[in-house]
Amino acid sequence: MNRGILVVVSGFSGAGKGTLMKRLMEKYDDYALSVSVTTRSPREGEREGREYFFRTREEFEELIAQDQLIEYARYVDNYYGTPREYVDNQLSAGKDVILEIEIQGALKVKEKMPDTLLLFVTAPSAHELKERLQGRGTESPELIKERLERACEEAEGISGYDYLLVNEELETCVDVMHEIIQNEHYRIGRQQAFVENIVQELKAFVKGE
Amino acid sequence: MNRGILVVVSGFSGAGKGTLMKRLMEKYDDYALSVSVTTRSPREGEREGREYFFRTREEFEELIAQDQLIEYARYVDNYYGTPREYVDNQLSAGKDVILEIEIQGALKVKEKMPDTLLLFVTAPSAHELKERLQGRGTESPELIKERLERACEEAEGISGYDYLLVNEELETCVDVMHEIIQNEHYRIGRQQAFVENIVQELKAFVKGE
Repeated sequence: MNRGILVVVSGFSGAGKGTLMKRLMEKYDDYALSVSVTTRSPREGEREGREYFFRTREEFEELIAQDQLIEYARYVDNYYGTPREYVDNQLSAGKDVILEIEIQGALKVKEKMPDTLLLFVTAPSAHELKERLQGRGTESPELIKERLERACEEAEGISGYDYLLVNEELETCVDVMHEIIQNEHYRIGRQQAFVENIVQELKAFVKGE
Repeated sequence: MNRGILVVVSGFSGAGKGTLMKRLMEKYDDYALSVSVTTRSPREGEREGREYFFRTREEFEELIAQDQLIEYARYVDNYYGTPREYVDNQLSAGKDVILEIEIQGALKVKEKMPDTLLLFVTAPSAHELKERLQGRGTESPELIKERLERACEEAEGISGYDYLLVNEELETCVDVMHEIIQNEHYRIGRQQAFVENIVQELKAFVKGE
């Protein structure tokens, strides 16, 4: 059995990443979703182990000290990180693991684990991105401007990604994402065992069975 | 419009590459097939510009001298090469071009044009490969052994390819090949114009329209 692929998904705020991930998990049975660990307090309706693993700061720093996180970052006063054990277990079991994190974390993961597949999700245009942020109706003009500024900064990192997913129509985008991940299994670098095996067999034939 | 992708297909003798290519061209309208130029004589039923462009040795050497070939090789007493002009025109017109050549040529093309997509076709096992070669019924045991020896040598080059296509069931393999090529268009490196455009738009928003 081949090892699973670690797939990291990032994207601009307003690109519809959340909906995309939700739909991917509903539609296809192939993926395990990595759940992050955080020191922030649970919000209404959030459940331990579903949205996040909730830990104290001391517990989190212990995880860092024991190298039990693939990556972590600190925003404002809280830590967010990706537990290594769950990801490793799923990959070893041949399952593809999806991890939704922001760009800086994604690039760090790729550095440590170069065979990670990095997908970046965007709306079809900046105009559309802005409209979607405004359309939520929940964000102030200041917050929208902040989001757009952040998108500008984040855009610098896009070239480190493997694929760009343009989320124009949800179902199409979900299917393309699924195809890209599935086809990634055919990459030569992920088929080394198969290739070595066929070469050994060929050599045996030539030597004369 | 995005530039087309140059797709080079190689594979073991007996992998069913010929049938695969024929079916791909029948089933999907997306591709232009590059026709090679050769100095060997046309065989029964072969037509100028369909199987090959047939040229004299002097004409062929003139093509080399004028750098009009992407790659060329010499087998026994004949030259085989890929005319540059047709490939360039199709790529510029946004069409993906399929080129079926052997490994050495394929790796040379990738060296010169690093954004070439290299696909390697194999049967599911060496045993199956041998059976298919024997099943043709047209080849002597010596020739089969020669083919297997050649496969052993060729296998050394596989790691330079991008994807491995295991031709177990023809229709599935054709569809996977099509998906891989189509999804290659979403590679970040092929979406630079799109990314730059969206970044410019975002910056304009932030500066305050």
